[in-house]
Amino acid sequence: MNTAVMEKPAKVAKNGVDVPTLLATIGAVKDMPAAAKFQFRARGEWVSGTHSRATVNGFFGAGEEQGRAQDFVIEGDHPAVVCGADRAPTPVEYLLSALAACLTAGVGNIASVRQIDLTSVETTVEGDIDMQGILGLNDEVRNGYEGIRATVKIKGDAPVEQLEKVVRQSIARSAVFDMLTNGTVVDVTIDA
Amino acid sequence: MNTAVMEKPAKVAKNGVDVPTLLATIGAVKDMPAAAKFQFRARGEWVSGTHSRATVNGFFGAGEEQGRAQDFVIEGDHPAVVCGADRAPTPVEYLLSALAACLTAGVGNIASVRQIDLTSVETTVEGDIDMQGILGLNDEVRNGYEGIRATVKIKGDAPVEQLEKVVRQSIARSAVFDMLTNGTVVDVTIDA
Repeated sequence: MNTAVMEKPAKVAKNGVDVPTLLATIGAVKDMPAAAKFQFRARGEWVSGTHSRATVNGFFGAGEEQGRAQDFVIEGDHPAVVCGADRAPTPVEYLLSALAACLTAGVGNIASVRQIDLTSVETTVEGDIDMQGILGLNDEVRNGYEGIRATVKIKGDAPVEQLEKVVRQSIARSAVFDMLTNGTVVDVTIDA
Repeated sequence: MNTAVMEKPAKVAKNGVDVPTLLATIGAVKDMPAAAKFQFRARGEWVSGTHSRATVNGFFGAGEEQGRAQDFVIEGDHPAVVCGADRAPTPVEYLLSALAACLTAGVGNIASVRQIDLTSVETTVEGDIDMQGILGLNDEVRNGYEGIRATVKIKGDAPVEQLEKVVRQSIARSAVFDMLTNGTVVDVTIDA
């Protein structure tokens, strides 16, 4: 009897994910939980009207300060119909895009670890908001979305049930889904 | 007695905000609450690994479909230290930026309606996240931020107390602050 047949095949890179390194990273964090402590940051500045510009770069993670080769710039504005200059997406559109990006990244990683070749992943997200809240016209109307609906369309070389499980696992491990559905503490300091 | 002295001075445009039009818009929505119903959308597609690209354009609002002259493109990725390609901000950095943009846009509008000239608004936001949650290593650790801290630094031609009140009102009417602190319903449909 050949012992080789008893071993699971080594997992290989898939879908642009370096699976062996990802699994090694997860193993390293398991052995040293302090490495899992991350802090992300954004620095925003007002430009004009409702137009602002945020810069994202350094963060803390894996035990030390991390930098990127260049800043990421994220501009926000309000649309013209609510008197903005419409120079950039609204903050609430960034929220929908963050959810799409988080679920999609999770699908990319999870499918790859499960050695499924992905063909495509399309995530559409929409949110309904009643501006009476923001505009201060009705105290019974909340400021944020009354509800968000997302559809994740996934195609790949695995049975439908396995593809569905990949998406379910991505939802179960999504940072943005967690914060949107469960909320999180936000402390604001005002420096005037 | 001259009746003119009894009238409040007409509010004028400030800080790039067309205040008369903004107030007229709020008045119009007050008279027709159905105009306050908005729906925003994002369409995301997987690119490779944890890299995705979302497109934002049309939305429903003010009683009809609204479009922009061009799409806004929002790319997301994971950083290299967690095996991403680091081609774009992480989804959780978009969340921080959305909060900064939302608070800043609110400050822009509210200060202008109050006829305060703004000099600068700087909003820094940071969030602490323990990756043991996302990585599935510890069920007692949540996926999202354990907490978010923001600092809004505001300068303008008004007493400190008035500037502080502008920021407090912006927080009280922020869609993103509301959703992050109170949560919102998210329904996900899987199409495999």
